[in-house]
Amino acid sequence: MALIMTTRDKPWLFRTYAGHSTAADSNRLYRTNLAKGQTGLSVAFDLPTQTGYDSDHVLARGEVGKVGVPVSHIGDMRTLFEGIPLDTMNTSMTINATAAWLLSLYVAVADEQGASRNSLSGTTQNDIIKEYLSRGTYVFPPAPSMRLITDTIAFSTKELPKWNPMNVCSYHLQEAGATPVQELSYALATAIAVLDGVKASGTVAEKDFAEVFGRISFFVNAGIRFITEICKMRAFTELWDEIGRERYGIADEKHRRFRYGVQVNSLGLTEQQPENNVYRILIEMLSVVLSKNARARAVQLPAWNEALGLPRPWDQQWSLRMQQVVAYETDLLDYADIFDGSKEIERKVEALKDEARAELANVLSMGGGTSEEVIGYMKRQLVESNTARLRAIEDGSTKIVGVNVFTTTEPSPLSGGDGEQIMTVKDNVEYEQIERLKAWRAQRDAKTVAAAVEELRRAASEGRNIMEPSIACARAGVTTGEWGGTLRAIFGEYRAPTGVALTMTAVSSDSLEAIRARVKALADRLGETPRFLMGKPGLDGHSNGAEQIAVRAADTGLEVIYDGIRVTPEQLVKTVAERQVHVLGLSILSGSHVPLIREVMQRLRAAGLGHVPVVAGGIIPADDVNVLKQLGVAAVYTPKDFDLNRIMSDLVGLIEKTAGTRAA
Amino acid sequence: MALIMTTRDKPWLFRTYAGHSTAADSNRLYRTNLAKGQTGLSVAFDLPTQTGYDSDHVLARGEVGKVGVPVSHIGDMRTLFEGIPLDTMNTSMTINATAAWLLSLYVAVADEQGASRNSLSGTTQNDIIKEYLSRGTYVFPPAPSMRLITDTIAFSTKELPKWNPMNVCSYHLQEAGATPVQELSYALATAIAVLDGVKASGTVAEKDFAEVFGRISFFVNAGIRFITEICKMRAFTELWDEIGRERYGIADEKHRRFRYGVQVNSLGLTEQQPENNVYRILIEMLSVVLSKNARARAVQLPAWNEALGLPRPWDQQWSLRMQQVVAYETDLLDYADIFDGSKEIERKVEALKDEARAELANVLSMGGGTSEEVIGYMKRQLVESNTARLRAIEDGSTKIVGVNVFTTTEPSPLSGGDGEQIMTVKDNVEYEQIERLKAWRAQRDAKTVAAAVEELRRAASEGRNIMEPSIACARAGVTTGEWGGTLRAIFGEYRAPTGVALTMTAVSSDSLEAIRARVKALADRLGETPRFLMGKPGLDGHSNGAEQIAVRAADTGLEVIYDGIRVTPEQLVKTVAERQVHVLGLSILSGSHVPLIREVMQRLRAAGLGHVPVVAGGIIPADDVNVLKQLGVAAVYTPKDFDLNRIMSDLVGLIEKTAGTRAA
Repeated sequence: MALIMTTRDKPWLFRTYAGHSTAADSNRLYRTNLAKGQTGLSVAFDLPTQTGYDSDHVLARGEVGKVGVPVSHIGDMRTLFEGIPLDTMNTSMTINATAAWLLSLYVAVADEQGASRNSLSGTTQNDIIKEYLSRGTYVFPPAPSMRLITDTIAFSTKELPKWNPMNVCSYHLQEAGATPVQELSYALATAIAVLDGVKASGTVAEKDFAEVFGRISFFVNAGIRFITEICKMRAFTELWDEIGRERYGIADEKHRRFRYGVQVNSLGLTEQQPENNVYRILIEMLSVVLSKNARARAVQLPAWNEALGLPRPWDQQWSLRMQQVVAYETDLLDYADIFDGSKEIERKVEALKDEARAELANVLSMGGGTSEEVIGYMKRQLVESNTARLRAIEDGSTKIVGVNVFTTTEPSPLSGGDGEQIMTVKDNVEYEQIERLKAWRAQRDAKTVAAAVEELRRAASEGRNIMEPSIACARAGVTTGEWGGTLRAIFGEYRAPTGVALTMTAVSSDSLEAIRARVKALADRLGETPRFLMGKPGLDGHSNGAEQIAVRAADTGLEVIYDGIRVTPEQLVKTVAERQVHVLGLSILSGSHVPLIREVMQRLRAAGLGHVPVVAGGIIPADDVNVLKQLGVAAVYTPKDFDLNRIMSDLVGLIEKTAGTRAA
Repeated sequence: MALIMTTRDKPWLFRTYAGHSTAADSNRLYRTNLAKGQTGLSVAFDLPTQTGYDSDHVLARGEVGKVGVPVSHIGDMRTLFEGIPLDTMNTSMTINATAAWLLSLYVAVADEQGASRNSLSGTTQNDIIKEYLSRGTYVFPPAPSMRLITDTIAFSTKELPKWNPMNVCSYHLQEAGATPVQELSYALATAIAVLDGVKASGTVAEKDFAEVFGRISFFVNAGIRFITEICKMRAFTELWDEIGRERYGIADEKHRRFRYGVQVNSLGLTEQQPENNVYRILIEMLSVVLSKNARARAVQLPAWNEALGLPRPWDQQWSLRMQQVVAYETDLLDYADIFDGSKEIERKVEALKDEARAELANVLSMGGGTSEEVIGYMKRQLVESNTARLRAIEDGSTKIVGVNVFTTTEPSPLSGGDGEQIMTVKDNVEYEQIERLKAWRAQRDAKTVAAAVEELRRAASEGRNIMEPSIACARAGVTTGEWGGTLRAIFGEYRAPTGVALTMTAVSSDSLEAIRARVKALADRLGETPRFLMGKPGLDGHSNGAEQIAVRAADTGLEVIYDGIRVTPEQLVKTVAERQVHVLGLSILSGSHVPLIREVMQRLRAAGLGHVPVVAGGIIPADDVNVLKQLGVAAVYTPKDFDLNRIMSDLVGLIEKTAGTRAA
């Protein structure tokens, strides 16, 4: 009997999140990746670009080209896509607060290339709520931020019919510790906030609203508990359809389809025995491609050594090959949905949907959207979930191979040898980018620039759509910092809630009790509760680690000061002095730890506070650990240090050793 | 709403197929692997042990300790399991023709350890049919071979209630090119042959037959087309239950359970970009653990570099970690069967079952069992399937990343560097093993040995169960070669059908036609059809590659001589002389290519046939390629050479260049 086969499905888009150093370097990397069979691009921007600063801004120091490519003006954007026809490419841009600007630069370059706007296909992430909750590259307060999102949606609906103007991004919720139910409910709450906002703005005609709904896409994370993840993706698909039908009355099933891209869980990648990460990444990827009815439209995968630093070309190739093996060598795409009718999967999907509906209703009952109350509530919930997640790793109830089980290992040929294990951004990158930027400014027509900026200012003030004036700015040669500065002046800036409850909890363990006793003894000796300042200098907004350190430190009985992200070295040293801090912790995940920590140490010494011990944490390559120690840092922690009580013990030990200094 | 979770399942057994060099080296490796979290052992024996020769037998030359551990007597077996309590271990032994002997040694060592026979748990592969069809380590003709299997089953049923005396082994059918339907039907035909044989032998009481049925286990392969593989495993489970019920009237569902171990597909591992093999192995493993209702009981995985040579300890650790990540980090074991009720899976399972039932009925209608006709038929079918499989790779309809698509690559840190990429067996291993063996023989009590061998001879001749006399031999210090030799003298030896149809087919392609034209021109020039001898010297029985070369060579119009496996260098050179062979091909996958090919070249020169060109193929590390070329080999092919027409073009080119020599 011959088998009846369904026709083979087309694979999802293969992407790699990439970009570093300069536009020219990144362009070379993109072209190489495309030649190797990648079918879409995913652009990583550096932190100054993400937060609307030029490469030569004081806050950009040490950050240029580190976590992504610097794009300061249309010249950089042209270079980035040189030789890549934008009318046939599918480009994902991880850009949020400045999404309207980067999309403007993209459209301006596409126009120059002669690409029709109808043909432009891709996404701008453009989800500000998850920036407040987790990723931290927000700039403006909620209201103008939501207005910028609405502007890009209204523009895209008219001009870029194949563009996804925003991705509701639950990816970073999971990175912040969200449970599957929190991912589902908070992402859907964000989508509803955006859609309700568009409706309320009146910028889109009622008849076009189904199109708006249909262009909302999602960017989702997939963790190692992959059966649950399979069910989560199916729950997302079914809930989105339900919301489209019931809340917005979207009639066409096509518009209600849950379309999503994926980057799998970086949180679960280990620095210990990092070769095992390839397994985790593949298992996580399978959870978003196995279900035909809830299959990802685009997948980008981290490299095995992401927990160590920036991947090399071979690492990225190896990562791409994973998608190709699954799509081209296996028979997955020959089959209809393999879980349709499965009782076990349906049971779990229904359970997730029930719980997510309840939590969504809860958030909406608080007013939903971007109110201080809602953001604060969700943030606290995420910090709590993350605390629970880390406790489970510490107590061994969550097993991680190489971390808390099976920790012995043979020497690895992947990690040993004389070759570089990761890629590093060259030191001259920042200097040269700034030189190019200065030359760019010098050759522009100053009058055209001024006029374009003035028109932008007016549009922003008057509530007109920001997109066409921004595209005009792009063409005139306006810089990212000028665009950001103009809007900052009008909209103001924002600090998001930290979600951190800095009080002792009822949780107990032998090692925690021992540390609490030492803190109490210290307090008795010093006549005051010892103070720990948790600092996040630089533009890096990845605050999950800093939050957990702050929470645990408070739990030991220390007095903890934590003001959230983007606190300058100057402000940190001021706080050390004013609050008579006993130990200072610095968390930096952007790769700019050396210049930032050097500045902190210099300022501490200059202020006569050289005796205050400093510890650092982040994604810090082994070579840099020695550099930091030479700068005077007492201890350096990386993702492999999952035992928070050991870190607490170190902190308390440092106070025990040095607190006499001040008393004297 | 709280989720109702089923209780977490126990994971399958984690094994690694391992063994090399000496019993002491292998014992060290086993202990290390167990310390790393392996939960069972899987013993690889070397080819002399597998085929019943002592390490100092002439046919063992170059093979000692290569593909597994040499076990020549109970002393080696003691060393192999030193410090490993056999009453708590689960040991799988890949042993077939000599399974009764190795099981006897195992039981004797367990007795010495004081382990109760009731407690011994594990398997002996003991499937002779697939040795005839694919793997080639058979010794005796079908009838006595089946009798040895029956003896071990009858013995185990009484003495070793937790032992699986035989694994029906479809693993090697897939390696030989079998389609899923062929795997299903031929494996089930083998099981039926064994069960019918046990019934007919009258050695097991009728009331114990359900026990016998219940102890038959399977050893299965899983390939890259993993949805089909998932369905294949479910089809196996359901068909086995059906055969138990309908053919043998087994009442208890527990006895009818399909219990199986797995080693995943080595055939699909690539020498090109070998780092991608980790993905293939994981995908393949998932297909045998995803279905709770058809989950493997034990899994052993190859290492990523198996296509290159023997894996190092780190490679084996990395492979073990894959199982640990899936079992301990994911939530797979928290769920009930995730495909129960799935319409798509059920559709495919039913289709596979229908086709397999039909092919099984076909085989049974030819008489089933081990008749020459049935073995010959199945072998021909497998060679045909393998030919089709390779053609699909050549023409690109089967895509393999790094092989026929996405072939460009960055330099790999895994494959580069100054470290060894694989492990090699040291040259002194064979010499030292032989010295130990001689010392063993010298210290034995000759009289006890002779008496034990005589009792074995009698039991074998008189049709009594071979097991207790073999265990007595083990205790007396009898060697593997003495045990094998005694039974060879009584049972005789066997040559299995090659399954190779050495005639030109109707298949055509541009490159094949071009080669056919050259062969025809050669034939016109020489006045005779040029002759190609395909030789497989040594004990290695992996003949799939040799068969495919022979088939394709015949398809070019060459006259092909292929006599199957285990032809000695002496015989090969005799054939070259007698048949006036124009080119000689040698295929060796056991790692003993250097000594064997050295001997062939010496004998060719000694016979005045030094002008006959020789090519070689097999798993040959890069370093050895140069050694072989220095010996005078014209070309060396490894698994990366998938383009058979290119190899054919080389062969014909060699004849074109050298055939004048003979004409002169």
